[in-house]
Amino acid sequence: MPDQSVDQNRRLTVAVLGLGAMGLPMARRLSQDFAVRGFDIDPARRALAAVDGAADCRTAREAASAADVVLVAVRNGEQLEQALLGGEGVVAVMPAGAVVLLTSTVGVEAVRAVADRLAGTGVALVDAPLSGGPLRAAQGDLLILVGGDPSDVAGARPVLDALGSTVTVVGRRPGDGQAVKTVNQLLCGVHIAAAAEALALAAALGLDGPATLEALQAGAAGSFMLGNRGPRMLEAYDEGGAEVLSRLDIFVKDLGIVGDATRRLGVPSPVAAAAEQLFLLGQAQGLGAEDDSAVIRVLAPERRL
Amino acid sequence: MPDQSVDQNRRLTVAVLGLGAMGLPMARRLSQDFAVRGFDIDPARRALAAVDGAADCRTAREAASAADVVLVAVRNGEQLEQALLGGEGVVAVMPAGAVVLLTSTVGVEAVRAVADRLAGTGVALVDAPLSGGPLRAAQGDLLILVGGDPSDVAGARPVLDALGSTVTVVGRRPGDGQAVKTVNQLLCGVHIAAAAEALALAAALGLDGPATLEALQAGAAGSFMLGNRGPRMLEAYDEGGAEVLSRLDIFVKDLGIVGDATRRLGVPSPVAAAAEQLFLLGQAQGLGAEDDSAVIRVLAPERRL
Repeated sequence: MPDQSVDQNRRLTVAVLGLGAMGLPMARRLSQDFAVRGFDIDPARRALAAVDGAADCRTAREAASAADVVLVAVRNGEQLEQALLGGEGVVAVMPAGAVVLLTSTVGVEAVRAVADRLAGTGVALVDAPLSGGPLRAAQGDLLILVGGDPSDVAGARPVLDALGSTVTVVGRRPGDGQAVKTVNQLLCGVHIAAAAEALALAAALGLDGPATLEALQAGAAGSFMLGNRGPRMLEAYDEGGAEVLSRLDIFVKDLGIVGDATRRLGVPSPVAAAAEQLFLLGQAQGLGAEDDSAVIRVLAPERRL
Repeated sequence: MPDQSVDQNRRLTVAVLGLGAMGLPMARRLSQDFAVRGFDIDPARRALAAVDGAADCRTAREAASAADVVLVAVRNGEQLEQALLGGEGVVAVMPAGAVVLLTSTVGVEAVRAVADRLAGTGVALVDAPLSGGPLRAAQGDLLILVGGDPSDVAGARPVLDALGSTVTVVGRRPGDGQAVKTVNQLLCGVHIAAAAEALALAAALGLDGPATLEALQAGAAGSFMLGNRGPRMLEAYDEGGAEVLSRLDIFVKDLGIVGDATRRLGVPSPVAAAAEQLFLLGQAQGLGAEDDSAVIRVLAPERRL
């Protein structure tokens, strides 16, 4: 269905604020279809985005002031609040009718708080946390969980469609995307931790790693994460570890958001809490910047698989 | 490959010791191909097996004394030891060359201990724990993880092939099947517990249960158990709960075996331990005989999904 709210003859301008692990490949993908204006506090990241055609903007306001859509890919809720509403926040300079597209995972409450403060500014917020790593971001192959008013979502639709192969509108309020993402991350984090415990136990039992992985993945024990991270856990003891596709400290953050939500809502979650502790142990042991499959080294520091 | 060790012209005699949730449907399936002799301490279970053609034997020895293969489907390692080597144990009356086929999940150590005691008796042990519930047992559609000496496995092969659609020989020693099954149950138990926590959180966040389940199962959060138990967790609040396909107290037992193994081998497993506690809570709250999907009611006693 063609989107009615955007003039098809005019090239959309998209600002990308935050050119990190996900922001940079998204800027790359968007530069193929749109006029992209990139900002990051690190000039080296801006230079990387500029190679693919994104304008190198020295301030967030410079990037956002002429944008139809301002994609925000920051690390956490504090950075979100600062980027939008802080002393140099972009909302003050954004054109009326422009849309903030938030792709970061920051939790429901942080998004609701910002959305409340945007009311009356003429700037709308679409909540669009992602699933899928940097490679899929660069290929426009992300799963995007969208929460927002339908007219605001329509304004961001060309950008969503360029980034995602599956764009699921899960609710009409900013924060609804975060809600589903929070549940998603509970499962993903626990499944990675379970795969690590399972493979560490298999090694201690003297089982062959690859054969056991194959036998288990085919049956009731299978999960996306066992199939995806399991083989990388077998590489976790190689020189330099597995290639970093998703940093271990992302699950420290995301299981922290899960913990905040379950505590606030009074939902016991001992299994997710135990998984969070494993990732915290990994971070405390200096594995935060490694691929999250390195969590197996918390359980079994020496290669046995 | 045709099995060389069994006279193809003679009908194999199979004793089934233990006609419980899994033993009864296995006896039913085997009665289609073999002369089956059934024993259970409960005469009512023997009568049920007799309907399908299994001989109603009043003692285990009566069932086993003329059997080529003695399938043992008991609850735990203690019952295994008793059935084979206790005062009325069947090993003393089994023909030389007969094979004990153990389908119960009892852990590596229990099987190794029994196998050691069988050395020199002329009776061999094949370790063959199962994955798949009663329905798949009745249809011969189980996943069977086999550990045993190749010649012993060959002796049990016709029975294994009648019961399983996937028969994977994972090692040459009795106990090797239990090792893989232990790792399998760690993953299955944690995945069920994670699904329960995820769906309880989704409900508390105000999300729609079926829609959230569908969105999550399609992505990185997906698992066999989320797809299989998730919908049954949505039924867990219905009158009488979900149909009992696998009892909750099975995971109390199996995660207990996981805990024994990880403790013995010094493999930390905080996530599996937390999952075990959830199932123990369920058992303590009287949910042991319900379907394991009822574990969600430990986290959220009232329906919110």
